[in-house]
Amino acid sequence: MTARHGEAPTLESVAARAGVSRATAGRVLAGSPRVSDHARDAVLRAAAELSYVTNRAARSLMTRRSDSIAFVVAEPEERFFADPFFSLVLRGVHAAVAAHDVQLVFAVLTDDAERERFARFARGGHVDGVAFVSLHGADPLPRELQDAGVPVMLQGRPLGTARDEPAPVGYVDADNHGGARAATRLLAEAGRTRIGTVTGPLDMAAAVDRFDGYRCELAALDLTPAAVAHADFSVVGGRRAMHALLDAEPLLDGVVVANDLMALGALQALNERGRRVPDDVALVGFDDIPLAGAAAPPLTTVRQPMAEMGRAIATALLEMVGDRSPRPPLVLPTEIVRRVSA
Amino acid sequence: MTARHGEAPTLESVAARAGVSRATAGRVLAGSPRVSDHARDAVLRAAAELSYVTNRAARSLMTRRSDSIAFVVAEPEERFFADPFFSLVLRGVHAAVAAHDVQLVFAVLTDDAERERFARFARGGHVDGVAFVSLHGADPLPRELQDAGVPVMLQGRPLGTARDEPAPVGYVDADNHGGARAATRLLAEAGRTRIGTVTGPLDMAAAVDRFDGYRCELAALDLTPAAVAHADFSVVGGRRAMHALLDAEPLLDGVVVANDLMALGALQALNERGRRVPDDVALVGFDDIPLAGAAAPPLTTVRQPMAEMGRAIATALLEMVGDRSPRPPLVLPTEIVRRVSA
Repeated sequence: MTARHGEAPTLESVAARAGVSRATAGRVLAGSPRVSDHARDAVLRAAAELSYVTNRAARSLMTRRSDSIAFVVAEPEERFFADPFFSLVLRGVHAAVAAHDVQLVFAVLTDDAERERFARFARGGHVDGVAFVSLHGADPLPRELQDAGVPVMLQGRPLGTARDEPAPVGYVDADNHGGARAATRLLAEAGRTRIGTVTGPLDMAAAVDRFDGYRCELAALDLTPAAVAHADFSVVGGRRAMHALLDAEPLLDGVVVANDLMALGALQALNERGRRVPDDVALVGFDDIPLAGAAAPPLTTVRQPMAEMGRAIATALLEMVGDRSPRPPLVLPTEIVRRVSA
Repeated sequence: MTARHGEAPTLESVAARAGVSRATAGRVLAGSPRVSDHARDAVLRAAAELSYVTNRAARSLMTRRSDSIAFVVAEPEERFFADPFFSLVLRGVHAAVAAHDVQLVFAVLTDDAERERFARFARGGHVDGVAFVSLHGADPLPRELQDAGVPVMLQGRPLGTARDEPAPVGYVDADNHGGARAATRLLAEAGRTRIGTVTGPLDMAAAVDRFDGYRCELAALDLTPAAVAHADFSVVGGRRAMHALLDAEPLLDGVVVANDLMALGALQALNERGRRVPDDVALVGFDDIPLAGAAAPPLTTVRQPMAEMGRAIATALLEMVGDRSPRPPLVLPTEIVRRVSA
């Protein structure tokens, strides 16, 4: 924005600085192949030095970059704003991107029309790379963009790729399986024997991995699932699922809830049913959102490093924009945060 | 995304459809002036029909559009996620934009470096127009972008432009002045005589207008401000300001709070000071966010049409992208929503 502090540079001033005619400068900036390499270099250098932006296309022709990356959430807007998980990951992305002088834009894709539209936008060169968060199902969009030459990174392993398999698209994930195992073990070590779970939506690898971790640890401890209910990572869903668990197993004494928002709903349900937490039923959440510590009682939970995941996703994506080479999956550790609920 | 369902179109297929040589098609798509108008039209039409995207710049050269608009919030990320005002306006913008098959991207600008970066991005043609929300001070960014040919709309009148003056940039606003007058009148008509206010940040026209409306209505009623405290539109700020008001005027019996989040904080403070609401102190908020009805006691507030403002901003912006002509300011009415707090 040099222009801000003086006259806007003109095509004439670019041509003069480059030592070429106005017509030649115009051809270079319009992307014509009919100019010598020497003239092209001189004009592009002069244009860059003068911060000259001729028209919408010329700048993009100069750098082939938009100097921006997109953070895309494949969820309804309500969920994007309701679950602090997204803003915490986003904050990490934002911090990493800002340090590289790259513009971060975010988009919410709620239906197929929006997905097609975003694909057009990204393939049109308006972002240099795309980070996807909260993908459901075996979503083809990241792979499509990657095949079209747009660097892509995922938050979370894509569904359909096993934990030890090479993934078609790069991803950064938390150790969901290990975290759920640790949560289950914590309950068992506290003497709980009738341990149920509230899962997330099983079209997401994070929910599948947490569910598997719970079952895997129970099996290792020679226990069986006391009751299982499936929900959607929302407070309302967690409340409903907790009521269902208590209906299915009135003697339930422990529950692993696959995220903190659902755990807040589960606390409501336990309160409505007159169950004391943790005395009657001990409960462990997942995420460690800021609300977890303010819950009644304060929530014991599995902390996943949300901002750190965001930073890792952004850093990997920016590297891919630079060198176009794929990145291996990165799985960050989780840890139990002990408060009162278990 | 025709390519999704078959072979990706090639430069050859575009040239064949246009009836020109591959070299000519290439020159057109590279933006060269050295082609006949007839050939250019034929190639661009063929490329469009085949959904051909040659490289990052070519598509932009074809349409000179990115088919996207940006929703920019000039606030720290925390506030963007903490105040439902933004998501409600955004939802209106999103709905209007989606109906026009245009991509909506949003960005949060927290410092000058981010503002400069975003200006580069927008001037580089990666968005066709920009909606600004929650501007502070006499922010030069919208005007700079407008001068650079980027259509711009503001949510909220720019600071430094009086309500009856022509504005340098188009805006959509709520009737903040009238809403605050109505809130003040409601308290007076309920017999309150010592009416204070908690203002928003006075570097925003919305906060200035609400403060003016409060004073203006008190003057019309032959009352004077009982106590005034300034805060930042946050829950924490509202709580602190309410304590300050009670310190300054222990006999306070009514308070106009310039937004609902601060009103929630004010309710906390009143509770901490043992004041019953509305018996001892009646309180009116502003916005009508979803939490207002769930507060204890439920909040009487001035409803501003947030989603409607979002739709109006997006619609005006899309029209400006089409015809490049400025839009007159639009001020939407507010209305009192009576619940329990006043």
